[in-house]
This record gives sequence, C-alpha cells and structure tokens, in this order.
Amino acid sequence: MIKVGLLGCGTVGGGVVQLLRANASYIEARVGAPIDIARVLVRDPNKERVAELDRDRVTTDAAAVLGDPSIDVVVEVMGGVEPAREHLAAAIAAGKQVVTANKMLLALHGGELLERARKRGVDLAFEGAVGGGIPVIRVLRDSLASDTIASLSGIINGTSNYVLTRMRQGGLSFEAAVKEAQEKGYAEADPTLDVGGGDAAHKLVVLSMLAFGARLDGARVSTEGIDAVEPVDHAFAERFGFVVKQLAVAKLKGEGPSAPLELRVHPALVAEDDPLANINGVLNAVAIEGRALGPCLLSGRGAGDMPTAVSVVADLVDVAIAKKSGVSGNMTRAIRLGDRHLAPMADVEARYYVRLSVFDRPGVLAKITGSLGERAVSIEQLVQQGRGTADVPVDVVILTHEAKEAAIQGALEAIGKSDYVARAPRMIRVH
Amino acid sequence: MIKVGLLGCGTVGGGVVQLLRANASYIEARVGAPIDIARVLVRDPNKERVAELDRDRVTTDAAAVLGDPSIDVVVEVMGGVEPAREHLAAAIAAGKQVVTANKMLLALHGGELLERARKRGVDLAFEGAVGGGIPVIRVLRDSLASDTIASLSGIINGTSNYVLTRMRQGGLSFEAAVKEAQEKGYAEADPTLDVGGGDAAHKLVVLSMLAFGARLDGARVSTEGIDAVEPVDHAFAERFGFVVKQLAVAKLKGEGPSAPLELRVHPALVAEDDPLANINGVLNAVAIEGRALGPCLLSGRGAGDMPTAVSVVADLVDVAIAKKSGVSGNMTRAIRLGDRHLAPMADVEARYYVRLSVFDRPGVLAKITGSLGERAVSIEQLVQQGRGTADVPVDVVILTHEAKEAAIQGALEAIGKSDYVARAPRMIRVH
Repeated sequence: MIKVGLLGCGTVGGGVVQLLRANASYIEARVGAPIDIARVLVRDPNKERVAELDRDRVTTDAAAVLGDPSIDVVVEVMGGVEPAREHLAAAIAAGKQVVTANKMLLALHGGELLERARKRGVDLAFEGAVGGGIPVIRVLRDSLASDTIASLSGIINGTSNYVLTRMRQGGLSFEAAVKEAQEKGYAEADPTLDVGGGDAAHKLVVLSMLAFGARLDGARVSTEGIDAVEPVDHAFAERFGFVVKQLAVAKLKGEGPSAPLELRVHPALVAEDDPLANINGVLNAVAIEGRALGPCLLSGRGAGDMPTAVSVVADLVDVAIAKKSGVSGNMTRAIRLGDRHLAPMADVEARYYVRLSVFDRPGVLAKITGSLGERAVSIEQLVQQGRGTADVPVDVVILTHEAKEAAIQGALEAIGKSDYVARAPRMIRVH
Repeated sequence: MIKVGLLGCGTVGGGVVQLLRANASYIEARVGAPIDIARVLVRDPNKERVAELDRDRVTTDAAAVLGDPSIDVVVEVMGGVEPAREHLAAAIAAGKQVVTANKMLLALHGGELLERARKRGVDLAFEGAVGGGIPVIRVLRDSLASDTIASLSGIINGTSNYVLTRMRQGGLSFEAAVKEAQEKGYAEADPTLDVGGGDAAHKLVVLSMLAFGARLDGARVSTEGIDAVEPVDHAFAERFGFVVKQLAVAKLKGEGPSAPLELRVHPALVAEDDPLANINGVLNAVAIEGRALGPCLLSGRGAGDMPTAVSVVADLVDVAIAKKSGVSGNMTRAIRLGDRHLAPMADVEARYYVRLSVFDRPGVLAKITGSLGERAVSIEQLVQQGRGTADVPVDVVILTHEAKEAAIQGALEAIGKSDYVARAPRMIRVH
C-alpha cells in the first residue's frame, strides 16, 4: 500500500480524493498496490467537504502528517507560499515523495525545491501547477528529453482569455467582461493576479525552468495586464487579420548555455490562422518549438478543480509506481538547473501594433512617420479611422515591420509628448 | 550501459542515431547509464546513410541482433508487417524491451504484441507510431490514467491535411494538390494509403486501443478518402462557417465495458472556430475528450523523420530508465485490453452537408425536401448556387440538422436514383 498525506482539502484536494476512489481498481493495477489517503491536513476539521473523509484521518497538525514515518507521498494542494514551502521542504528532508499543484510556490522556490529533492533522491512532481489538465509539464520533462526547446508561447491564464474572448466575440467592455467572468466563477473577487498577468508570469517561470533547464526562482518576468485593451483594439486587430490574446512567451536568444532568456507576459496580436488564435474562453494552450520536433501545441481546460485534480492524480500514480519499484528520485535526477541571464525587454524584436489618438491637423501624419522613421521603425500599414478635426481626435492605427523594442518605445515616448496626440499611445506586440 | 539493437536504419533510424549522439550526456544523466547502439540490422550494408555507423556493428542477419543476449532493447524502425512482427515477437520472447514506430504492424497486431509483452514482463513503447513528435501515446497511457476517455478526433494524416489545405487556401484541384505534395516530399509516388484514409485508420486503431482499453487488432474502420472532395465543397463549407478536414474519429457510444465503439475516417466539415480547423499543412492534431479532464488538444508535426525519431528516442529513454532500475514491464502491466463491439456506421448521428447537382425543373426542391423529410431528416440551410435550366444542372447544397446516418443514406439513395439529379449526391459529415 502507498500511503499519502494530503495537505489541504479544498476543491482540488476533494477532487483528488474522488478520483482516487472512482479509479481505485485501475490505479491499483497500474501501481501494483492500492493508494491510501492516510492523513489529511486541514484548517477546519468541521467544514463540509466535497469528498467525505474519515474523521480520524483528518488533522490540523502538520507534524502529524510530515512526521508520520508510514506516509510515502505528500500531496500539497493547500496553495500559498508559506507554510506550503516549509511543509514540502520538511517532507523532502524526511525522504517522502512530493506532489504539488502550487504555481506561486514553484515560481518563487521551484529551483530550490527541485535541488533539495534531487539531493535527497526523492521525486517532486507538479503537473497540476500549470495548465490544469494539459500534460505540458510531463511533455517538457519526459517526451522532449531528446530535444532542445527554442521557445514556448502560451495562453496560460483562463480568466484573461475568457475576458478577451468575450470582449471580441460579445462586444463587451473590459469591465463588463470581468464582471461576467466573476459571475461565472472564472474570476476572483479581486481579479488583479489574473488580468494583471502575475498568475501567467508564475506559470511561465515554472514552464521555463523545465523547458530551458534554468534556475529562475523569483525571476522578474516583464508583465503587462490586459486592462488597457479596448474593444476598438479587437476591431482593428480583426481588420489586420489578427486576434488579441494575452500571451506568455519564453524564448532563447541564441544557442548554448550562455544564451539569454526572454520572459514576457503581455497582450499580443496573434494571426487568425495561428492555432493559438482559436483557443477561446477559459481554454489554455502552450505552443512549444523544439529544435528537432518543430512546433507542438497542447491545449485544454487550463483552470478548474477537476482538470487540476486529474493532473495531481496522474503525478501521484507516477510517483507511487516509482516508490513501489524502489526507483524514486529518477524524475528529479536528470533535472540540473543552470543559471541564465534574462534578456532585457529593450532587446525584444517584434512587429508592433500602435494606436494613436490624434488631432487631425496638417502635417501630423508626417510627424508620426518621421518619429518612427528616425528610429528605423518602418510602417507596414497605416489606417486612419474616419476624419477628426483640429480639436476632436481620431484613431490612427499603425502596424510596423519588425523593429527593436527600444526603438518603438523611444518613438512612442516622443509621439506621446507631442501636442497632436490626445492621450498616451497604445502599443500591442505582434506575435 | 544499455545496449540497443536497431532494426532498420533508414531516415528514422538515422535520426535516432543522430539524436542519441547529440544528446548523449543529457540522456546518460537521465538514464544513469550511456545508451549504446550495439547492433544495426540493415538490408544493404553498403548503402550510404545519414548517420555513419561502425561497420562491425552492422549486420544483415536478424538472429545476430535478436539472439544476442547482451542486447537490452530492440528498436524497430524498419516498417512493414512481416518480418517486423516476427522480430518483435522474438525480441519479447527473449525478454528484451521493445520500441517501435510501426503503425501498420500495431494496427494489425498491437493487441497481440502488448499481451505478449505484458505476460513476459517487458516494456513495449510506440510513441513514434502515431502523430510523429506529438506525445499523444504518452498522454493517453500515463497522464489520463486517472480519467476515462469519451472520444477522440484527430487530423492524423499529414498528406491529406496538406492536400485539403492547399485546395482551400491555394484554390488547387485535388490532383494538382497531390502533385504538389509529391514534389515537396509530403506524398508517396502512390498516395493511396494516405489520401484514401488507410494510414489514418491504422493510427486510429492504435490510439483507440490505448484510449478505450480495447483489443482492436485488424479492426475494420469505416474509411473514406478525400479524393471526392472538390474545390466547390471548400467554398460552400466556408460560406457555412466550416473548413473541410480529413478526420479520424473514435467515440464510445454510452458508458461501461459493453458500450460499442464508433471508429471512422472521413472528410468532415469542422467549424472554423474549432481548434482542429486551424491545423493546416502537414501538421497533425488529436483532440481528446476526457470525462474529468474535458477537452484536450495536442498538435504538431505529424510526419517527418526527425519528429518521429524524437518520439522513438523519448521511448528508448523511458524504457532504458526502467531497465536500469530493474522495473521493466510496468509500462505494459496496467494495459489490459477488453473486447469492444464496433458500432455500425448506420448508427452514427451527425449533421450532414449534402451537395446535389440538380436540373432546375419545377417541383424539384419539393421532391428533395420530401425525400429527406420522409426519413425525418430536417434541413437547417439550403443554398442554390445560381440558376440552372431543365438541362444544365446547378448545385444545391443542404446542411441538415442532426440525423441518423441510416436515414441520410436512405434519402441520398432515393435522390440519387431520381431523374432530376445529374450525378450521385455528395455527402460530408459535420463534425
């Protein structure tokens, strides 16, 4: 029997308990032994739960789980950084196998925890941390063992994707779309971590750690939220053949162990025939570019308790098989994280979508194109929507050829200071 | 050291040799031992190869590989059914671990080989058999261990997808698109197995065996090729908001071990906002619907030597880790295949696209709608393209509501026999 200590029993933890029960006979055949939830750490033992638990297995004392020598695997689904980090470090030190779905913890301390697990010879699995039920961690870890990843791009925050999808397809404002997401349970009461890009940045760090073998604990990801995207941006994007998506992008700039890594989260124009353009609603997707493999896309329900529970149980089965076979630690043994510089945003090269609110005065377009041209930013398309006047501004939208981020930022700063624009320029990178 | 016997050294085999060399240090860290290609079975030892091989390791004698007790793993990339089946059966009987990328062999004898491997306690891995570098076999086998699959739908023949993409985007005829695919190396001189649907049917059997735990050796998949799809079908599909794709579909009709399985390969109208609609060119994709997981899509380069080699090496690494740890056989131990009835095509329920070539005579539309209505097939949309005459036919295209396959087939048979149509009706199922 494989004995499990479950830290936390909210909706994901409850889903884990349910799945283990529903698939008990299949899992027992696969593992070669039953999996038993021996201890459950909760804050309030009297709370009603999705999955019924034996009262004598429930405890509010972490030491009763972590200090129990009969526990083989600790599954952490409590969330938050502390005390989750402390508990996992203690479990690893005690030689227990560990499964977690905690993206924030891994973004801040994943390298440290992996290193501890490797040295102690135990497994540390975390499929549930990114992309809900999408098996992207597994793919990065195992399947691409024989390949080098050049880049990955993902839609990895379901809330942001839902909001952008409803703005585009339903014509809602940002505020109305967020409100709708909250009503449907897709957004928190305070949606900042989701729509501000912070959650996606955490997940990007976890993915990049594996994809590029890089120690990235607490890495500062350049992050922009979707709150500045307006309905008119969706309309212009469509006119140019694009869709606005919130993307998380990681890219190796060059080859070899000293090549810097670009990490960024921001709204982007995605070509409408790119598979990422059609990942709608709360769906998530990760596109991986392997040197030998070429492009590979994985998509599915990124959030939600059951998809995450599916991933946690899959990890638990893996870890239990290894434990049963006496080969724990293989999962972490090959993961050696090296240091990588992060490339500054100024070095990004992309095409840019720029929307200006311009007073329609003589010579204004010449000034705009001049400001861009001076910095070697050349224009692919320029659209003026209707006619303004010298006092009523009109939207001018520009799609540039590939340019340096530093150049476009310089040009927008100059344009933003001029007297012919009504407000700060809006820029969205083209994917 | 893990010693490998390689059966076949064409382009995939050469890719495997190259990847093992290029990633040797990473693979050694992961496995805990180097992987050595100790023997290579070829037909012609004097042929020039992508990867240089030690002459004294190359042999034309299968027994020199299969009978060598120092060989731990046999990797079969020779293709064809015999003698590949015989070689793999011999390798399993000798207690060797087995990796293969041979979809035709697995479609005909996969259940038999898995059963042999399970009884002998050895691993049998075959990620390379379906979807090139897309890790779909791994996902079905491992990650979804804790879920039940309700259905899967895939674009799993790159040649067909390339041809349909070029017809739609480039306005080519079927014949011109096939010729272009041949020139680019995406289609064989005889493209029948690809465009006729046979290759996709093989892959569908392999996927379904794992997804549904079903013994399907030699299963008769209802198969239609793409050769009857005409440019005008792409145009009408677009008008209705669809894209024509060659799909392979497997679906459980109901729940429990006695629920029949629907297996079919045919052109289908896919809604343009379905992620499968944007899988273009030689890309492949498999969409899986898990009961707990919900929808999950994997896509990537489905064909090609390097993506397939990446998958073969990933399998080899997995199998080598298990061998090194003394836990071979875990991969096959949990796979128990049961019998499943195949549902007859007559039981399929779908919406249908029907294109008729009709002489424009009074009362004809009433006769058509009557033939459909008699069989409870109701019409969602009907379009007549231009005006014909009593002697010059015109296209009439109908999109039905959901109907039984038996009903639509009956109606089309009746309509096809009538004197007001110029040729047999064309039907494409809506996905």
